[in-house]
Amino acid sequence: MRISLLGGTGDIAEGLVLRWSKVGHEIFIGSRSEEKAKGIAAQYIEKLAERGIKCNIHGMPNADAATASEVVIISIPAEYAVATVEYVRDSLTDQIVVTPVVPMVKKGKAFYYTPPSQGSAALEIKEVLPEGVRLVSAYHNLPAKELSEIDLELDYDVVICGDDDEAKGVVKKLTEEMPNLRVLDAGPLDASSMIEALTPLIVNLNVRHKPQHFSVKFV
Amino acid sequence: MRISLLGGTGDIAEGLVLRWSKVGHEIFIGSRSEEKAKGIAAQYIEKLAERGIKCNIHGMPNADAATASEVVIISIPAEYAVATVEYVRDSLTDQIVVTPVVPMVKKGKAFYYTPPSQGSAALEIKEVLPEGVRLVSAYHNLPAKELSEIDLELDYDVVICGDDDEAKGVVKKLTEEMPNLRVLDAGPLDASSMIEALTPLIVNLNVRHKPQHFSVKFV
Repeated sequence: MRISLLGGTGDIAEGLVLRWSKVGHEIFIGSRSEEKAKGIAAQYIEKLAERGIKCNIHGMPNADAATASEVVIISIPAEYAVATVEYVRDSLTDQIVVTPVVPMVKKGKAFYYTPPSQGSAALEIKEVLPEGVRLVSAYHNLPAKELSEIDLELDYDVVICGDDDEAKGVVKKLTEEMPNLRVLDAGPLDASSMIEALTPLIVNLNVRHKPQHFSVKFV
Repeated sequence: MRISLLGGTGDIAEGLVLRWSKVGHEIFIGSRSEEKAKGIAAQYIEKLAERGIKCNIHGMPNADAATASEVVIISIPAEYAVATVEYVRDSLTDQIVVTPVVPMVKKGKAFYYTPPSQGSAALEIKEVLPEGVRLVSAYHNLPAKELSEIDLELDYDVVICGDDDEAKGVVKKLTEEMPNLRVLDAGPLDASSMIEALTPLIVNLNVRHKPQHFSVKFV
């Protein structure tokens, strides 16, 4: 598939780009800066070439990346996520958009989930998307470091929410191409807040159980 | 230890009573109805006797159960939890109180976390506790059925929050006496909302992945 990662220059983006490239998907790295996007794309291409993996990765401005792709991952910090989606709105027509966005704050030594008035980042993003664009919540709780080690098997669960079963099916398929991730469906988009809240919980566990980078499995 | 279970007649109470009795703790079953509490205590005693396990289980009104114990578990549905704690308030002096309380509602086919204005059930309960009583959040996400099968090993994590390290240590010890539960510390009491929100998420997963009764493990 053609997959874009808006803000594809940080955090979980690297792992997703490398792993999806490995199984043959075409990747569009988006950034506010075209130069930065191209630079990062070149780094990913080189990392894969070192392992003898041919890939199809392009760097470009966010709006062009969105236009070029069938699936758009909003891998952007919560404080910039909605503004970025508004900025690329005209490039979104019938894509599947995936939000791993989690608004949270640190107070003292602990992190807290801070949902917007809509109830979740997912619902806030939904408000600015054009009709016809299907939104799926996913990838909130993948540890970036482990994700980027592309030969590492990831025995984690990815919990997803969304209102369109076909879109959730596409996200499930893309996710389970990364061994050994398992997708669990937690219901409609408006149940996303409970997935988003899991991220600061995991961060709080990581703070107290160093050097663990926890992810989650439902057993 | 002397452990009371207020509302010890339902849900996770059975498993906790049976498992803690098995390792020698003295249990006080509380209920609004003394008769009901004594009836349930008799049932638990019989269940354990069938397995040749001697136990020390008593049924009594909630306030007496609280007075008699060092650790008080509020195993009460969210809608009655605060009222019950207010009702037994005068029986609470220096006990450790444990809240597994999760306020949630069902809308359509999905469940949603509905925290009170304080931010979490834990913080709402904290407001009505006397000073000196230490509150720990725990046991929100244990599947009642599996918990009650006392020979079953439970390979789950119990995430706890609280402001008193000694109290959290007691809860950790009591929990890890039930094989193979592992306690993970997720920080201060005011971070409890993220643990509470995990319960409706798990219920939503159970709805869509029958006949699974999920619990959680951080890996």
